[in-house]
Amino acid sequence: MTSATKKVNNAEECDGECGSCSTSDSCSDNRKQQYEQEQKLKLSLSRIKHKIAIISGKGGVGKSTVTANLAMAFAMNGHKDEIGVLDADIHGPCIPKMLGLKGQTLVGGPGGLLFPVTGKLGIKVVSMDFVLPNDEAPVIWRGPLKMRAIQQFLSDVTWGELDYLFIDLPPGTGDESLSIMQLIPDMDGVVIVTMPSEVSQAVVKKAVTFAKQMKVPIIGIVENMSGFVCPECGAKVDIFRTGGGKKIAEGQSVPYLGSIPIDPSICNDSDNGLAFIIENKTSLATKAFTEIVKKIDQFLENTDSHHHKEIKK
Amino acid sequence: MTSATKKVNNAEECDGECGSCSTSDSCSDNRKQQYEQEQKLKLSLSRIKHKIAIISGKGGVGKSTVTANLAMAFAMNGHKDEIGVLDADIHGPCIPKMLGLKGQTLVGGPGGLLFPVTGKLGIKVVSMDFVLPNDEAPVIWRGPLKMRAIQQFLSDVTWGELDYLFIDLPPGTGDESLSIMQLIPDMDGVVIVTMPSEVSQAVVKKAVTFAKQMKVPIIGIVENMSGFVCPECGAKVDIFRTGGGKKIAEGQSVPYLGSIPIDPSICNDSDNGLAFIIENKTSLATKAFTEIVKKIDQFLENTDSHHHKEIKK
Repeated sequence: MTSATKKVNNAEECDGECGSCSTSDSCSDNRKQQYEQEQKLKLSLSRIKHKIAIISGKGGVGKSTVTANLAMAFAMNGHKDEIGVLDADIHGPCIPKMLGLKGQTLVGGPGGLLFPVTGKLGIKVVSMDFVLPNDEAPVIWRGPLKMRAIQQFLSDVTWGELDYLFIDLPPGTGDESLSIMQLIPDMDGVVIVTMPSEVSQAVVKKAVTFAKQMKVPIIGIVENMSGFVCPECGAKVDIFRTGGGKKIAEGQSVPYLGSIPIDPSICNDSDNGLAFIIENKTSLATKAFTEIVKKIDQFLENTDSHHHKEIKK
Repeated sequence: MTSATKKVNNAEECDGECGSCSTSDSCSDNRKQQYEQEQKLKLSLSRIKHKIAIISGKGGVGKSTVTANLAMAFAMNGHKDEIGVLDADIHGPCIPKMLGLKGQTLVGGPGGLLFPVTGKLGIKVVSMDFVLPNDEAPVIWRGPLKMRAIQQFLSDVTWGELDYLFIDLPPGTGDESLSIMQLIPDMDGVVIVTMPSEVSQAVVKKAVTFAKQMKVPIIGIVENMSGFVCPECGAKVDIFRTGGGKKIAEGQSVPYLGSIPIDPSICNDSDNGLAFIIENKTSLATKAFTEIVKKIDQFLENTDSHHHKEIKK
């Protein structure tokens, strides 16, 4: 059927493809609105080269810290002004605090568009925190509202041309994680963050299965808070044990990206809105993190060259 | 209207109160099923003297550890066989592992009833973990299904007569937390667990507001992972800083219950299904925890005597 043969507002003949319908201007069908939203989302996503989600099974394993520092690392390494961070944790958004952007707000533009907040090295950030009146305000929302918020953060925000978008997901495999995976079908992959404890391991396995079921490539597992070296006497204390992340990676046949030791300066820097990899260049944690960044970079290069090969075929 | 005047299956005259309707036996209205569920829930809850939820803003602050050890502490102090723990974290249930009950399953009884798993000191436990086939299986559910699961864990489980039910909620103020608060209108109160870092503080404020908005009494705030003493040299290292919990409590005019220092044996014991307060009786963490238990006990006694006074009036 060509667009010329389509009838105005004829629900029976509507295929939801307003782009090829000559009468869409005068149409008031709900599907039109939905179609326009989808088109906006597609356009927004098509301008972002790489999308990477950072997930975990359990909360509090340092997912936001890893996300914030990944963004800074990529921005420093040739991608200034080309990095975005979507804080998809609706109930407990931490990214603004960690990137030194507390107190900023999303500014609206024409046509209902929103501008992300821009931080150091031109990193563009969107977070629920930027639309809440204060820290005390909880977001007491059930699933469907959260899905809608995340969709808007992707489609109604003028992210512009980006090399990388890092998405910080809340723990678990609930509404937010599902929404993100469904909204971004061309996700490059997920980085799974865990703690070494056995309790965390049991939960991170679920995250691995979740990614596999969603058919999203797993870039690898990062073990955070892995061992502690006393700054006074140099004694090594395994506060949350060590090795759990690697064990899971091997058991689940998933790449292991590395382990980041516990370092009090990581917490201090996060609280002060600083990236520990910049503030503590010689620390063991920074060295470990640099190795992890290299592996992620490698993964993406391989996907890129694979893509190029696919296109050449 | 007396029950005798009610008509059979007359939707217009139905007031949803099947208990006072003489024809409810032959009724097939949806409301009947709903009414029966509500009655089951009420009956189940009426047999539990105290219901206490353990909540947090951010994940990974040790909420499940606090819940498990609270249950053990109360069981040891005169409430053997009278304690229940509901693990309401659908996506990342940790309680079974921490109470040494991994691999157990909920057993069904007549009429669709479920029996909780019974652990040490007769503690009755219900968790999503007991119905999952293995650790790898993620629960990829949106909100409404989670609400239903939690409702069943309360109404369809034969908890029996209990002195205390401790409910371990997932982080955040989403579906699970909302559901629990709505399902248990006579909740004694919530214990809010946090970490000292500023990032955690920003999020825990939301939990405080959430409880206030839900009109649930706040028993108090616990600061977990508060400072670390090197076991080798005795140096005090504030890995995640200290004092944040107290600051929040004062700022929000909420009782402060105490702070639990970081102790590697807490992680070890949790991983091995042991309660650290039993395994490490002389540790600083156990001493701190004992003080917290006392304060919670005091809060409940005050509510009890207040209740008695109210009844006497």
